[in-house]
Amino acid sequence: PDEAAKEAAQERNAQLTKPAGSLGRLEEIGVWYASWRGEGRPRITHPQVAIFAGNHGITARGVSAFPVEVTVQMVANFEHGGAAINQLARNAGAVMSVHPIELERPTADFTQAPAMSEAECVAALKVGWEAVDPQSDLLVVGEMGIGNTTSAAALANALFGGAASDWVGRGTGVDDAGLKIKEEVCAAGVALHAGKAPLESLAALGGREVAAMAGAIARARHLRIPVVLDGFICCAAAAVLEKTVSGALDHCLAGHVSAEAAHGAVLAELGKEPLVAMGLRLGEGSGAGLAIPLVKAAVECLSGMATFAEAGVSIT
Amino acid sequence: PDEAAKEAAQERNAQLTKPAGSLGRLEEIGVWYASWRGEGRPRITHPQVAIFAGNHGITARGVSAFPVEVTVQMVANFEHGGAAINQLARNAGAVMSVHPIELERPTADFTQAPAMSEAECVAALKVGWEAVDPQSDLLVVGEMGIGNTTSAAALANALFGGAASDWVGRGTGVDDAGLKIKEEVCAAGVALHAGKAPLESLAALGGREVAAMAGAIARARHLRIPVVLDGFICCAAAAVLEKTVSGALDHCLAGHVSAEAAHGAVLAELGKEPLVAMGLRLGEGSGAGLAIPLVKAAVECLSGMATFAEAGVSIT
Repeated sequence: PDEAAKEAAQERNAQLTKPAGSLGRLEEIGVWYASWRGEGRPRITHPQVAIFAGNHGITARGVSAFPVEVTVQMVANFEHGGAAINQLARNAGAVMSVHPIELERPTADFTQAPAMSEAECVAALKVGWEAVDPQSDLLVVGEMGIGNTTSAAALANALFGGAASDWVGRGTGVDDAGLKIKEEVCAAGVALHAGKAPLESLAALGGREVAAMAGAIARARHLRIPVVLDGFICCAAAAVLEKTVSGALDHCLAGHVSAEAAHGAVLAELGKEPLVAMGLRLGEGSGAGLAIPLVKAAVECLSGMATFAEAGVSIT
Repeated sequence: PDEAAKEAAQERNAQLTKPAGSLGRLEEIGVWYASWRGEGRPRITHPQVAIFAGNHGITARGVSAFPVEVTVQMVANFEHGGAAINQLARNAGAVMSVHPIELERPTADFTQAPAMSEAECVAALKVGWEAVDPQSDLLVVGEMGIGNTTSAAALANALFGGAASDWVGRGTGVDDAGLKIKEEVCAAGVALHAGKAPLESLAALGGREVAAMAGAIARARHLRIPVVLDGFICCAAAAVLEKTVSGALDHCLAGHVSAEAAHGAVLAELGKEPLVAMGLRLGEGSGAGLAIPLVKAAVECLSGMATFAEAGVSIT
């Protein structure tokens, strides 16, 4: 973040025609955004939503309520504009890109072997890195991948400790028996791949779309593009970066807290307060896409409002 | 609300390409909106933000941190596009109108006499009623009026009971001494005008902009235009309708919960769950304006998403 831009934004914010502090968290977000963009009076004109898709070997274990072919079917739905995130991206004025990653080649079943080799994981990280448009001024990353709440739960468990039951949830809607399978699969994977560094855990327990999200979030940091984090899977991907380098997510806001059981716990671990809590549990970047207009609102207030002097309004 | 449109929207929602219920509260809002508009697949294309301004006799008692001339100065700021609500309305794609109501004639000091005569109150209600554009498809009402958190606190106290201290707060930012004055003024007004019907309490303790908001919300009901409620003052105005006819606010959502102390209590009395909680305490319709894109998002998902059949996505 740019200290001069931050100070300029703070100074401007203090002069705007409103009681001090009366825009609440919008004021913090505006100043935060300005500091990352290096401008005291920034605008958001090019938000980007990048959706990554991958398939998971653990689906053979029965961890999802949906069949695996839904991943590729939903990619087509994204491309044709029919998914929730298409509506939410349009509603937010964002450009959306879709990145299926070797859907015909699922990851390995992580209860038997690492989900990805180091080379495969690096290739997926690179897909994410390259998906970020350097002209974007706000980024949302989302995912599609039948089975990926189990992958994210195992990754979160490896990164943050605790028991498998602390991190698994109902995902797209498994029943009690399905939830038990998810727990067993998660616990087995975490036990098999214990004691690894965060990026190694990403390869061992993650998925291609999960790695790509981490790559995109890292690239956004490099480009000083603020990021709105989505739900459980996105935050598990992001947590790999934070656990690798503390502060790696300082350019990220939590867009929402989802209904997936462990998302709140991941946000707490990351020290992020969500903007919205509307019970979404869809993935696809939907919660973050929903929150983009709130971030834009914060920046519009900071940069668009008149000062007391400009408006001729009396100060107390 | 239209039962046929509600059923059509529910049926459509159940077929959309997402796990059942995974859009959380967005799904409820979409169906609710459809039921009020009488269309199973509605759109929001003409949101309106109407801002009302009035002056208050009780300002002479020192209830505000700002001088009374700020009301007319802020009206000019609204007209020139420099206030927070201008940015938030633009961010939400809403058209904004500003309605100053006899600013040169403040209400009477309600600790001495009714703030408004019946005729004055009816005239203010009528300003609100007529401010609603029948072509609008979503309405936010906001206010400006130095001293009006004290007026709203007295009105809420009269409507809901309890002590003055339950309803007064720091408003634009009064200190402890100012807060004590607000409490005394509120308690004196409520005692003087005890035992009145809700609409009489509005005249006795409210203000012209408060009455106008109530009039606009009632008109929106008549026109089947859903309303996003703003903060404490807007909700106190709305509460007059609910206390007059139970269910009168069924066409209203709570846009946000503000940092003004008693707003949460008013929302609880009205049975409304806020969409956003970002610590705003500005008024002007700002919290509701911030929430418009969330309501639009809900409607866009309901009406814009593909069904499983349309997208060729497998159902579990």
